[in-house]
Amino acid sequence: MFRPLLPRCGASQAARTSRLLLGLRQNARQYSIGAGAASSTIQLDIEPKHLSITKTTKPGALRKPEELVFGQTFTANSGLLPDHMLTVEWDKDNGWAAPKISPYQNLSLDPASCVFHYAFECFEGMKAYKDKSGQVRLFRPDKNMERLNKSATRIALPSFGAPAVIDLISQFAKLESRFIPDQKGYSLYLRPTMIGTQKTLGVGAPGSALLFVIASPVGPYYPTGFKAITLEATDYAVRAWPGGVGDKKLGANYAPCIVPQREAMSRGFQQNLWLFGEEGYVTEVGTMNMFVAMVDKRSGKKQLVTAPLDGTILEGVTRDSVLALARERLAPEGWEVVERKYTMQELYDASHEGRLIEAFGAGTAAIVSPVRSIHWKGENVQCGLHEHEESGEIASKMKNWIEEIQYGDIEHEWSYKC
Amino acid sequence: MFRPLLPRCGASQAARTSRLLLGLRQNARQYSIGAGAASSTIQLDIEPKHLSITKTTKPGALRKPEELVFGQTFTANSGLLPDHMLTVEWDKDNGWAAPKISPYQNLSLDPASCVFHYAFECFEGMKAYKDKSGQVRLFRPDKNMERLNKSATRIALPSFGAPAVIDLISQFAKLESRFIPDQKGYSLYLRPTMIGTQKTLGVGAPGSALLFVIASPVGPYYPTGFKAITLEATDYAVRAWPGGVGDKKLGANYAPCIVPQREAMSRGFQQNLWLFGEEGYVTEVGTMNMFVAMVDKRSGKKQLVTAPLDGTILEGVTRDSVLALARERLAPEGWEVVERKYTMQELYDASHEGRLIEAFGAGTAAIVSPVRSIHWKGENVQCGLHEHEESGEIASKMKNWIEEIQYGDIEHEWSYKC
Repeated sequence: MFRPLLPRCGASQAARTSRLLLGLRQNARQYSIGAGAASSTIQLDIEPKHLSITKTTKPGALRKPEELVFGQTFTANSGLLPDHMLTVEWDKDNGWAAPKISPYQNLSLDPASCVFHYAFECFEGMKAYKDKSGQVRLFRPDKNMERLNKSATRIALPSFGAPAVIDLISQFAKLESRFIPDQKGYSLYLRPTMIGTQKTLGVGAPGSALLFVIASPVGPYYPTGFKAITLEATDYAVRAWPGGVGDKKLGANYAPCIVPQREAMSRGFQQNLWLFGEEGYVTEVGTMNMFVAMVDKRSGKKQLVTAPLDGTILEGVTRDSVLALARERLAPEGWEVVERKYTMQELYDASHEGRLIEAFGAGTAAIVSPVRSIHWKGENVQCGLHEHEESGEIASKMKNWIEEIQYGDIEHEWSYKC
Repeated sequence: MFRPLLPRCGASQAARTSRLLLGLRQNARQYSIGAGAASSTIQLDIEPKHLSITKTTKPGALRKPEELVFGQTFTANSGLLPDHMLTVEWDKDNGWAAPKISPYQNLSLDPASCVFHYAFECFEGMKAYKDKSGQVRLFRPDKNMERLNKSATRIALPSFGAPAVIDLISQFAKLESRFIPDQKGYSLYLRPTMIGTQKTLGVGAPGSALLFVIASPVGPYYPTGFKAITLEATDYAVRAWPGGVGDKKLGANYAPCIVPQREAMSRGFQQNLWLFGEEGYVTEVGTMNMFVAMVDKRSGKKQLVTAPLDGTILEGVTRDSVLALARERLAPEGWEVVERKYTMQELYDASHEGRLIEAFGAGTAAIVSPVRSIHWKGENVQCGLHEHEESGEIASKMKNWIEEIQYGDIEHEWSYKC
């Protein structure tokens, strides 16, 4: 039987699509082929129909919804981890192996595995929601999978067929649906992760990898309603750089952010705001994209502004959703929706001239996170909220609009039924 | 008994030194204290005298020296991994636990461990050498430990007392001395690594960590003598930037380098040369520091030039050694030894005007790696070697000077007897 060489790493979407169109489905028998002579020409994609499921014999207890807080530390039997995990192994000779859902368990890895030394790791953050009828839903999983493929390819990890992994994540979420609380605002946080597992101390492209998905039930980021955050502008450390990897969801982008974040917290601010360059361009807030609503000085028009995808900004799914909803629903009300570079000085001027309407971060964890003030050059620059106000109008609208899609209150193409 | 709060993360060297001077040695009994009420005020440092050693019952076979090549893939019983590993656990309540030498084994980690998601990982590369009398030696281990502490602190991992870890690494190297070949050029590559092990999907400072040391016998980088490498200048991707973490030995700095390196190789070059900025500043070559010897246009003097430690350059131990030896032994011969920024255009001009004498990379793996040419703007810029020459005079001298210290042929303060 003729088996063509199927390119993996860096395979273009076109190549992948044509492969799918050609119906190059792999059958189970092929997985039995070892590292034999011909195996280097066989590259299997992830195949959901080969999924094997081994259910736990010790189902875990559930936490009360009110105890679910994002970012908690997991401990054994904490009720913060579902019973199972999804894994798919890859190696360069055989491609992707059969997917497995197994009881949640430790990973056993050689200490020379390249993930421990050279940060061969990338991930996604997404959630599964339960609608009123109990149907489990995902929110724009195609965007997460597209980004995970981009992240993986950038660090020489393998890419995969996105529909296959969405299918697998759906099956996984449904299997764990008892961990998804019914209430609005609650969800099952899903963490698809890919790591390089090759055992070598040489710095090179990993010859083996593991894609795994774990999950954790989470409550609303703001259980008692919005609480506007205060920021400290960071100009002494730089998160990302043109030509760097700041637009990819790589582990490499996160560890270096902790110290500046902790510095900001030590001075009483909740998050840090990343500035870039001598001009002081506003880029991201902590681990969220940043949005600002202000009146443009020259035109007098209301603008919703966010930094452009110039390679230094994470391509946030929530960012993209906010922009799309703003263009659809705010533009008709006279808002200009603009992706452009903007500086901290511009925010300062807008604040002092009464033109700064509101500011908020956008990300999967909180959806939107209203900003009260930004500490910059010794001053707390006020971002448009009145003293007893915890959110601006746009942030509130966006949260409602996005949640009603996520929880299936309205039917929308962004909501994916598992 | 009064036990003061001993600061860990970011503890200044002064604080650490004064602590050591005060004789705040911890005794074994303290390790039995669990996560009790008072434990948050107790922070133990690494204590070599508490080392426990569990020897393997299945000592591995040795490889023939000629089969030892740097960067090989490890497989079971390949003879490329010694029998044991050194581990020290840390948690924020208790500090460092008792060190252990155990049979080499997999790490068993929760898939939510922060090392897999946010690149909480840093490492060192160093070697153990055997001198003519069979004495095991390290080369400037204080520099490696100083850098590992800096790297760890930058990503909110714990710091440690450097002399303690040098002591432990010495004991480990001696235990594995049968894996250190006798021949010159051979050594036991040592890989101290620190990873964050906290189980959480929240992005924050790890509350637990693991320091481990593994090793692998390696042969000379150039077993049959120098072979000059060809480079491709990379200007489309950036390794490091001001305010970033490019001067730390973090995993985060490595995975993003693979694709540009692979691109260079796909076009027939051995390594890539990282340029920075519109000016095209020369920074590093692959994973080595870069040195250039040239005649200065204005003064007519011979200069050995390398980029300064401005935050974008790894603080290489070999770099530091080359600079020190050059100042001691080349300066009296009329060489100027200069740490300054220099551009690719400057190298291009020097090459075309016959002023470029030689260029080489410097790092632990190869010591020095002579450079034949750099592909830049469509041209192979020649770096001073004649057609049949594989190394310049300085690179050859440096290799010999550094090796005679590493192998104890001459006594030198840089050589540390285990």
